[in-house]
Amino acid sequence: MSERTIEFQQRLTIEQVEEGTDLAPRFDDRGLITAVTTDAASGELLMQGYMNAEALRLTIETGEAHYYSRSRKTLWHKGATSGLVQKVRELMVDDDQDCIWLIVDVAGGASCHVGYRSCFYRRIPIGESAGKPLEFTDTEKVFDPEEVYGDAANPTIL
Amino acid sequence: MSERTIEFQQRLTIEQVEEGTDLAPRFDDRGLITAVTTDAASGELLMQGYMNAEALRLTIETGEAHYYSRSRKTLWHKGATSGLVQKVRELMVDDDQDCIWLIVDVAGGASCHVGYRSCFYRRIPIGESAGKPLEFTDTEKVFDPEEVYGDAANPTIL
Repeated sequence: MSERTIEFQQRLTIEQVEEGTDLAPRFDDRGLITAVTTDAASGELLMQGYMNAEALRLTIETGEAHYYSRSRKTLWHKGATSGLVQKVRELMVDDDQDCIWLIVDVAGGASCHVGYRSCFYRRIPIGESAGKPLEFTDTEKVFDPEEVYGDAANPTIL
Repeated sequence: MSERTIEFQQRLTIEQVEEGTDLAPRFDDRGLITAVTTDAASGELLMQGYMNAEALRLTIETGEAHYYSRSRKTLWHKGATSGLVQKVRELMVDDDQDCIWLIVDVAGGASCHVGYRSCFYRRIPIGESAGKPLEFTDTEKVFDPEEVYGDAANPTIL
């Protein structure tokens, strides 16, 4: 871990935010920034979550993905329960600095609490097939969520 | 375009939402769902935006990416101004159906209003390098935003 203290810069001008080298993330009115996580090996989208300032600082300092869980209302070191830690290979920020992209290696090869490799295991039919049922693109679970999480509350909000 | 009318299902149970074939997206209190867009050819993350129900319906029906612009507060057919339309190759939904993943072909090869190929053209140093300035990973713009957008308002919110 670095001895350097991570400081986020104030957002002053569009040029600074879009074309500069200052890290000046925009946290929304809930104090959160969107995070998008892809697999370094396959390029596949694994999950989309949120970070608060603390989660972003810890991700930068430790090189392991930290998020903020909206359902549990707490800092979330991904993999602390399941062991499926995400090692950050690259961390990117977008043009207006309201989204963070994590490119990660996943221990165990799974990222989804339902047990699949990715959270995105169903396709929405489009065009001529619009309106048809969702299609499963991944039918095999990498782990059994009941074994891993036991009776912990399911994070899905209806 | 399909004659079938797209209907989103009501969210009734966690099993239906996570393990079923109903499209039952969760729009937040602003009426929006997160959208993540990657390039079909390179796998690169191009942008992260939002859709309202109308944008999602139009994306499904037309096979072209539609978003909701929070800064302009309006439906946004991506590429309508710049010509950089996104043709949807695959459309995916995540476990709890609060995020849509678009895998697209981009006419012109650029997706970012700043002119870069992707909105993610800067790396955040991590670990030992934590706290150092952002590093540009893409230094060449694909187009000149002033030529394409003229004096239209910049969508970045400070």
